[in-house]
Amino acid sequence: MAKKVGYLGPNGTFSELAARRYRERLAGEVELVALASIYEVLAAVGEGRVDEGVVPLENFSEGSVGVVQDLLAHSFKDLRLCGEVVLPVAHCLLAPPGVGLGQVTRVLSHPQALAQCREFLSRHLPGAELVETASTAAAAEAVASAGAPWAAIGPLETAGKYGLAVLAERINDFVHNATRFVVVGREEGPYALPAKTSLILSLPHRPGALYEALGEFACRGINLTRIESRPSRRRLGEYLFFIDFEGHRQDEKVREALEALSARAEVRLLGSYPSSSLPFGSLSPIL
Amino acid sequence: MAKKVGYLGPNGTFSELAARRYRERLAGEVELVALASIYEVLAAVGEGRVDEGVVPLENFSEGSVGVVQDLLAHSFKDLRLCGEVVLPVAHCLLAPPGVGLGQVTRVLSHPQALAQCREFLSRHLPGAELVETASTAAAAEAVASAGAPWAAIGPLETAGKYGLAVLAERINDFVHNATRFVVVGREEGPYALPAKTSLILSLPHRPGALYEALGEFACRGINLTRIESRPSRRRLGEYLFFIDFEGHRQDEKVREALEALSARAEVRLLGSYPSSSLPFGSLSPIL
Repeated sequence: MAKKVGYLGPNGTFSELAARRYRERLAGEVELVALASIYEVLAAVGEGRVDEGVVPLENFSEGSVGVVQDLLAHSFKDLRLCGEVVLPVAHCLLAPPGVGLGQVTRVLSHPQALAQCREFLSRHLPGAELVETASTAAAAEAVASAGAPWAAIGPLETAGKYGLAVLAERINDFVHNATRFVVVGREEGPYALPAKTSLILSLPHRPGALYEALGEFACRGINLTRIESRPSRRRLGEYLFFIDFEGHRQDEKVREALEALSARAEVRLLGSYPSSSLPFGSLSPIL
Repeated sequence: MAKKVGYLGPNGTFSELAARRYRERLAGEVELVALASIYEVLAAVGEGRVDEGVVPLENFSEGSVGVVQDLLAHSFKDLRLCGEVVLPVAHCLLAPPGVGLGQVTRVLSHPQALAQCREFLSRHLPGAELVETASTAAAAEAVASAGAPWAAIGPLETAGKYGLAVLAERINDFVHNATRFVVVGREEGPYALPAKTSLILSLPHRPGALYEALGEFACRGINLTRIESRPSRRRLGEYLFFIDFEGHRQDEKVREALEALSARAEVRLLGSYPSSSLPFGSLSPIL
């Protein structure tokens, strides 16, 4: 039976690209399932309708990262992280065939995508109206059906799906821009190195609490790759910290750090999983 | 001449509510100016078309927080933070007059707003289709013009603007949910206590770099209220940390901490400004 992997649809979004990229790494048959929202992806995993789900976590181009973190923290407490996919963001300007760059009167895309292409837009389309849409796919769909000289910003793969021509490629201002997706499942992923581990830490809000907790990583030479605070919503005066670091929870120094942390604070281990990026930042070369 | 304050339009969004809240605190005449995007708000401040802008920074309901941080870090390096507004998120279910809760077939809203009302939706509208829109105002507008038994999730104030009736109030799952907006200007805000200070720290990616930097706060008893890492985009192997903490940059211990930090890392001070919330978490009581 094919393994089912859910992702945030519709087709033609960066989320679909990430899900395809993840599929390439898996052995055996894999069926990709487009779902209506990030919540739906996590719910489908939790209820067993799909085996795993691919959702964006950082530097997202089609929605909000905060949603994923909050859902993992508050609504889907049994889910585990079992993989990650890092996708370089390469935005393109897409328009109906025959429309030239100089004719474009309106550019549509997700707010993040518009923001990531500001330099290109102000240089080449200073007079165009910028309109925000719910996703890059929604922008492409609107442009395809508008019958007007509009353009959409989105991934290259969107062009063919909506019958649009590519007016310009790689128009994003930052070359090293990338979106990180995580693979969510009901069980931990396979042991493989290099690995990354994600956890949620609940800390009391007092000066030094975070500093002391991070000391458990620093004193063991463990490299953090992400940290983000969010109010816990559960109790006043409490924060959650979403922390990712290099290493597998079965590694000795990671195991020691997790034990020491658990003595200080409430730790929820989201999982250890194969790291898809070089330790950090160098996102493009590996893909 | 009236002071001009820009915000992310259209009317009826949480951003407009935050801008109004900010206006209540200001002496003299203030004109609120609706702008098309977060980028436009920051650009208008930078170019002097408005004096200040109000943009969402944390736990946003109508777009992405990452946009604001990235724009402050990379595109608008001369802007300063001069205030903040913390707005409790109180979502309502809005429908055309005459439509009852049991009749609603489709619920529209921004992905964050849908995510924040999941428990209500699954209890009271388990069969309704959930559709994501670019903003809560866009959802209300679509519902008002649909001629169908659809409902939108958004702030109470939206109901009157779009001629919708309130089917249910305060439907968000977490009572302590709130969105934090910052006021962006060309100059620092007034000195007032309690104050908060925001900065961007560039650190090399090595174990302990963040730990050591945070030590400068911990050893002086300075309370952090937010920390978030983002890849710097500028150099591989470098992260930016967005850090907010309690205290004013003119306070002695804050001044000392900033000096010590500057010796270790690149520090960009975004500004000190009057704190609008109790030290943390306790968002509701102050509004």
